[in-house]
Amino acid sequence: MLNYPRALEELITALHIMPGIGQKTANRIAFDLIQKNKQGALQLARALTNAAENIKHCQQCRNLSEQDLCPICLRNDRDRQKLCVVETPNDLAIIEKSGVYQGYYFVLMGHLSPIDGMGPKELGLEQLLDIIKKNTDISEVILATNATVEGDSTAFLIREMLKDTNIALTRIAQGVPLGGELEMVDSGTIMHAFNGRQQFR
Amino acid sequence: MLNYPRALEELITALHIMPGIGQKTANRIAFDLIQKNKQGALQLARALTNAAENIKHCQQCRNLSEQDLCPICLRNDRDRQKLCVVETPNDLAIIEKSGVYQGYYFVLMGHLSPIDGMGPKELGLEQLLDIIKKNTDISEVILATNATVEGDSTAFLIREMLKDTNIALTRIAQGVPLGGELEMVDSGTIMHAFNGRQQFR
Repeated sequence: MLNYPRALEELITALHIMPGIGQKTANRIAFDLIQKNKQGALQLARALTNAAENIKHCQQCRNLSEQDLCPICLRNDRDRQKLCVVETPNDLAIIEKSGVYQGYYFVLMGHLSPIDGMGPKELGLEQLLDIIKKNTDISEVILATNATVEGDSTAFLIREMLKDTNIALTRIAQGVPLGGELEMVDSGTIMHAFNGRQQFR
Repeated sequence: MLNYPRALEELITALHIMPGIGQKTANRIAFDLIQKNKQGALQLARALTNAAENIKHCQQCRNLSEQDLCPICLRNDRDRQKLCVVETPNDLAIIEKSGVYQGYYFVLMGHLSPIDGMGPKELGLEQLLDIIKKNTDISEVILATNATVEGDSTAFLIREMLKDTNIALTRIAQGVPLGGELEMVDSGTIMHAFNGRQQFR
C-alpha cells in the first residue's frame, strides 16, 4: 500500500470485499468518495449497516425480507395452487416483473453445488418438502431454476425428492429467446427448442 | 426497482454513488454482501464513516491527511530546496513509491478545468505561491502534472504565475515509457521524445 492516511487505506481494503472490485477500482472509489462525496459515503455506510442488520429470510419462502414473512407470502389473493421454485431473490423479482405468474414462491438461495458446500440442506429442500406436504392446496410445483448444469442438477434433485407425491411437477420452457435469431443461438438451445416444440395453433 | 425489501433497495441506490458502479453491479454487490458477507458490509460501513469523518487536507501541501499536517510535511529530513506539484494524492503516492524524489510536495487536487469549476482558486494556486514566497529554501519547483491537455494547461498556468520569481521551474520528461516499443507509441509521444532528446553518455 502506498502513502495514504490510515483511514483511507482501511477504506480501500474494506471496498475490496465487494465482488468484482479490485485494487485499482477500490482506490478510485475511495478517492472519489472522500474528495467529492463525503455525504454519499456516510449515506452508503448507513445503508450498509441498515441492510446488514435488518434483512433476513422470509420464514415461509426464504426470500430476503425485513419481516418474518415477505410481502408476497403475506398476500392472500395469489394462486394457492402453484408454487414456483427459483434459485435467487433476483430470479423471483424478474418473474414478478414479467407479471406472468400469480402463485407463491420458494427461493433456494443458490443451486446444487457440493464443491461450494451447497447441498440439499443449504437449499432448504426439507423445508420445501414440508411446505408441499402441509399445504394441500398446492397442486403444481414449477421449477424455474436456471437453464445451466447447476440449475438442471437442482431440478433433478427436487424431482427425485417429490417423486412419491402426486404433485404436478413442471419446468419452465427452454428454447429460442424472444427476438432471438437462429444463427445467433447455440446448438444446446436449438436442441431444447426442437425437443420442446408444441402444436402451432 | 423490483420486489426487494426496502433496506435492500436503499442499499442498491446508495451503492450507485460509487463511480463506475451501475444498476446491475450495484444489485450484484448488494445481494452478495447481504447473503454472504454481512460482517464485511458492517466493516465497510465503519471504514466509510471513519474515512468520511476523519480525512481532511494537509494544511501545508493539501494532500489527504488525518492530521493537520501530513506525514511528509512533518518530516524534517527531506530536501527543502525542492517542491513537486502533482495533480492528485495518487500521483504523489506513485512518485513516493518510485523513490526518485526526496523533496516536498504540493497537491493541486485536480487540474485546470473551468468546465468542471476547477480554476486557480480551487487548485490552491494562491496557497502555492504563498508557500514558494515564504519558504526561501525552495529553489526548484518541479511540475509533475499529467502529460494530458489538462495537465499541460495547469503547468502553463503555474509557469505564468511564477514568471516573476527566480525559482527554477522544471517539468518531468515526456517520452517513450520504459519497455515501450516505438511501434506501440503514439506520434505525440514520439514528438516529445525527439524534442526532449539528451546527450547519450
